[in-house]
Amino acid sequence: MQQIKVPFAHYKVPTQKEDSYVTGLKLANSLKGSELVPFIPINGRQVNFYYCGPTVYSNSHLGHARTYLGIDVIRRTLRDYFNYDLLSVMNITDIDDKIIVGANAAKQDFLEFTKVWEKDFFDAMQALNIELPDVITRVSDYVPEIVTFIQKIISNGYAYESNGSVYFDVQKYISDGHTYPKMRPEVNAELLQEGEGESQINKQSEKKSPYDFALWKASKPEEPKWLSPWGQGRPGWHIECSVMASAILGNPIDLHAGGIDLLFPHHDNSLAQAEACFNCEQWINYFIHLGHLNIADRKMSKSLKNFMTIEEVLKRYTPRQVRLNFAIHQYDAPQNYSEEQMEQAIAKDKSYQEFFQNTKIYLRESKVTDPQKWTQFDFQLSTLLRSTKQIIHQALINNFDFPTVVDATDKLINQINIQISNKNIRAPLLNSAVNYVNFIFGLLGINYLTPFSNQSDIHQLMGEVCNLRDKVKVAAKNNDFETILNLVTLKQFQYEKNISNLIVDAINQFQSEVLLASQNKNKQQVFQICDKLRDQSLFDLGIKIEDKDKDQPSVWKQYDILDLKLEKEQQLNLLQQKELLKKKEEIEKLEKAKLSPKEFFSQQIDKYSEFDETGLPIKDKDGNELSKKQKKVVQELWEKQNKLYNSFLQQQQQ
Amino acid sequence: MQQIKVPFAHYKVPTQKEDSYVTGLKLANSLKGSELVPFIPINGRQVNFYYCGPTVYSNSHLGHARTYLGIDVIRRTLRDYFNYDLLSVMNITDIDDKIIVGANAAKQDFLEFTKVWEKDFFDAMQALNIELPDVITRVSDYVPEIVTFIQKIISNGYAYESNGSVYFDVQKYISDGHTYPKMRPEVNAELLQEGEGESQINKQSEKKSPYDFALWKASKPEEPKWLSPWGQGRPGWHIECSVMASAILGNPIDLHAGGIDLLFPHHDNSLAQAEACFNCEQWINYFIHLGHLNIADRKMSKSLKNFMTIEEVLKRYTPRQVRLNFAIHQYDAPQNYSEEQMEQAIAKDKSYQEFFQNTKIYLRESKVTDPQKWTQFDFQLSTLLRSTKQIIHQALINNFDFPTVVDATDKLINQINIQISNKNIRAPLLNSAVNYVNFIFGLLGINYLTPFSNQSDIHQLMGEVCNLRDKVKVAAKNNDFETILNLVTLKQFQYEKNISNLIVDAINQFQSEVLLASQNKNKQQVFQICDKLRDQSLFDLGIKIEDKDKDQPSVWKQYDILDLKLEKEQQLNLLQQKELLKKKEEIEKLEKAKLSPKEFFSQQIDKYSEFDETGLPIKDKDGNELSKKQKKVVQELWEKQNKLYNSFLQQQQQ
Repeated sequence: MQQIKVPFAHYKVPTQKEDSYVTGLKLANSLKGSELVPFIPINGRQVNFYYCGPTVYSNSHLGHARTYLGIDVIRRTLRDYFNYDLLSVMNITDIDDKIIVGANAAKQDFLEFTKVWEKDFFDAMQALNIELPDVITRVSDYVPEIVTFIQKIISNGYAYESNGSVYFDVQKYISDGHTYPKMRPEVNAELLQEGEGESQINKQSEKKSPYDFALWKASKPEEPKWLSPWGQGRPGWHIECSVMASAILGNPIDLHAGGIDLLFPHHDNSLAQAEACFNCEQWINYFIHLGHLNIADRKMSKSLKNFMTIEEVLKRYTPRQVRLNFAIHQYDAPQNYSEEQMEQAIAKDKSYQEFFQNTKIYLRESKVTDPQKWTQFDFQLSTLLRSTKQIIHQALINNFDFPTVVDATDKLINQINIQISNKNIRAPLLNSAVNYVNFIFGLLGINYLTPFSNQSDIHQLMGEVCNLRDKVKVAAKNNDFETILNLVTLKQFQYEKNISNLIVDAINQFQSEVLLASQNKNKQQVFQICDKLRDQSLFDLGIKIEDKDKDQPSVWKQYDILDLKLEKEQQLNLLQQKELLKKKEEIEKLEKAKLSPKEFFSQQIDKYSEFDETGLPIKDKDGNELSKKQKKVVQELWEKQNKLYNSFLQQQQQ
Repeated sequence: MQQIKVPFAHYKVPTQKEDSYVTGLKLANSLKGSELVPFIPINGRQVNFYYCGPTVYSNSHLGHARTYLGIDVIRRTLRDYFNYDLLSVMNITDIDDKIIVGANAAKQDFLEFTKVWEKDFFDAMQALNIELPDVITRVSDYVPEIVTFIQKIISNGYAYESNGSVYFDVQKYISDGHTYPKMRPEVNAELLQEGEGESQINKQSEKKSPYDFALWKASKPEEPKWLSPWGQGRPGWHIECSVMASAILGNPIDLHAGGIDLLFPHHDNSLAQAEACFNCEQWINYFIHLGHLNIADRKMSKSLKNFMTIEEVLKRYTPRQVRLNFAIHQYDAPQNYSEEQMEQAIAKDKSYQEFFQNTKIYLRESKVTDPQKWTQFDFQLSTLLRSTKQIIHQALINNFDFPTVVDATDKLINQINIQISNKNIRAPLLNSAVNYVNFIFGLLGINYLTPFSNQSDIHQLMGEVCNLRDKVKVAAKNNDFETILNLVTLKQFQYEKNISNLIVDAINQFQSEVLLASQNKNKQQVFQICDKLRDQSLFDLGIKIEDKDKDQPSVWKQYDILDLKLEKEQQLNLLQQKELLKKKEEIEKLEKAKLSPKEFFSQQIDKYSEFDETGLPIKDKDGNELSKKQKKVVQELWEKQNKLYNSFLQQQQQ
């Protein structure tokens, strides 16, 4: 009797060689039952990485967002943190049953049809700031390679032609000592048992065994077709990844990733095909899977009306907010998307935004000639910065544990915020800490510093604008209109190249309006114009002026315009929801007030069984008399309801 | 007899522990005679780094540029390439003999005086895009710590007070088994020899031995002074680094850097002081030195008139060109700065600039929906990219060998340039390669991509402007002025927030001028206006339009304005130099033409000794008759000079 294998016994950790690049990184490897396995690439720092791309037949949805955001963060981390030399390949499945159905329905050529949805996918990826892979492989480009690959599997004895199609011979593969499916030990055990009996060709089917899967499908009419040694047909789904990954990255491959929903059968079959073709033991060294995404506790599906396209999501949230929402969850754990979660992400995003804004102001106002001797606070912060770096390093080598990374970053940010408001931190140290936090956000594909890059011109201009506006307000308070006239007419702003034309317009308008208002000696109008500059004209261009307490000069912050716009909308949404809730409560209250005390209690048959003539309960639902205490309670309730009812009646009469 | 130590025998490579962060980096360690030593920080990824800052009493000069650019590149590489957790400290020497002289001459308080030159230094650093250290320590802030430190050395028996000053006791230090000076074995051997004789107090001096050096100097009148146990005085030069490095980074310290000119006595004395204070064997684990800089083959000095301030240099070259010039030389080798070298750097800078510009255009014009299947050219480039990464990695771990890094990058760039012009490279692969090259330039503190960041708005606008201009030119060629009128009046550009107000002005002006010229049916004027937009109005704003062959649409590139301006100036300079050379040659020619053939030969007494009546030589300088062949040559020369002379006489008569 054949021995049933120990689960995952097939897996071998790659050998560490002298020139191996060892970072300490460990990955949850599905080839070892999600066990954490030290990551050792085959050649030095080089990592060959393949991940499954989309089947392009419909809108890109939130499930895609989770998968490809997760992979994007992993890619950035491998490259930018661990300094691996990454070569990454993603396929586009443009031959598939669903595509054929969709193209026929749309009366389009299938490649015309897939081009539309491929573009939709890449547009969504770009909107989410997800980097392109180094190599994009479309199945329709690789049919000749697929045919050759299948021929090799047949000649190795692990596939057979049947009725114009070609199937993988699972039992033959197993009986030769291969493991299938590698990542599903329970199915493997079953198959090994079955192998003891005699294999029979299922007369009802083209397949020798129900476990056999198609490598090549004979095409039906109206289906795309390619010539092959087995007649006109098209590739099966699983074969594409084996072929295209090998075509670019060879054998073996360091790293393979995809959504957990693809683990079986797709990934297991891809593995079996490649190992059957190359007659090798381990085509992929590390197989990682992105966790499943539920929407409000249910599987996302169009029928459940919780299917959300990326386009829709990005109408409500900024790409950064969406990225943050996924980043604060472990990539390989299941995640449940909900509005509440997004609100958390929005709050986090806002706190990070303000962190960078406030440090920017602090650094802007600091000079290198300031006192630089470290105090205890600098020493403390330096120690915290270093321990944070250590925690984050440990978290990253621990299977990209970004929840811990975000948590440690939050603690560092909180401490910096305190020291900034107490003004007890040296600018060069703060600058280092800010750059480190920015680097960590960079791994998440998030950049809070960008709006400031290459805009040194605006610093001086905005400083001067704030200064002028502060002085105008002080003068207006003192009814000193002559000073305002002087201030505004004498101030000639210098507009450098990097200043937006719209900002110039806003400032010009501010100046001429203030001029007019002060000529009219209209104090209130001067204040209104100052407010307008803050709340409207500059705000709409992404610049927020923040007025401080009396004696303090105002400060300015620059944001992405999209951010500010969405922030406004999100605040409006929250307000609307609150109002809706309030209205609902009012309606319920009104419904309740319509009941006389008698009706009020008689409806509560789950609590009481007998009432007196006024409707007051005297026995509970089991027929027992109410206790003295209970009687007191219902008496109070009766009176409360009576009062409510009477006021309702009065309202009705008015 | 005391054994003379083996040179550098004192040095111990730090032990590699289980949690050591090992990258393979090796450093030329002056503590081991510049031998390459594996770099192993004391605590995991943490690197404590101290480097000597400037003495602030005069303008920052090219020597500073070399030292601090070198350190800047090393810091960026340690942090951004190797992912070390760097804490770096730089001192400012604001107590010093030269400062006292300067402040007295300027009739300023010495701290007022140093603040001016400290600001000059930091301004120069900022102009060169050199990052601030994490910690700046000014000597004037650390006098109490210096006093305590000296007291500890005295109590350890390695220093003595003499006449209000304190000196380090070199012989005592050596006789206790310490090594001094550690990095100068030849001096050490001498001292060990000397130790055999009896140590005598030099009657002529306050010092026991001429090798002893001051830790504390009794202040003379008109010198800054601080109270100390030894009376009023001020710190010696060397003590500051021992004290301030320890105050922030403790003991031992991973890495210490400075210019080679400081190696002895400054760095050796700093080491001795700290090891005498802590009674330890190895205060610094790695001591690296930036190479010496000559200017045009001579030591830079004010008297030789080859002293160049950074401010002056930056009037002639961009910060990038200056950075490149130093980057292509090994940091610890001597370097000779010259105009020719800078011309090389300018040429390199230009080629990199064009590389990024041309790849930008290629990527701008590519779409993700383009054919993506790899051809042999993509495979070849991918292989080259990977081998380049390997070469660069090996170069960087080999004591930051940036000349090799730049060389390998050049080869990669050349290959990419070829494939771009042949249009046989997939955009995602090109994008990866460009990002890698940009990352490597980032280690050099150079960024060619910046002008483009956050300016996606301009892409569409400039595309439309080029398109309009192309069409206007075609129509003008056909004398089709009606089409021009339609084109210009119908085209309403959308100006987004990120568009500079000056660009808007330039485009508006272009449109109205074209309108006028085409109303006047003036073809030549239309062309002139199109040229003006290209060569002047947009060019001055950093945008270059490049016209292509007939059928090809024009393209645009965006540059840093400063770059274009300096480029123009540099070209002008070259032209002027060429003209000067031409004039010089003309003058020499004229001088020669003034001579009659007779005078011409009679001057050549180093060649000939006897002449005939026409001035033709007949004997050579040794008195031998000229050979037949020689006679023929001089005859020809005679006739040539005669012709020249006659034409000169003719010119004179006119």
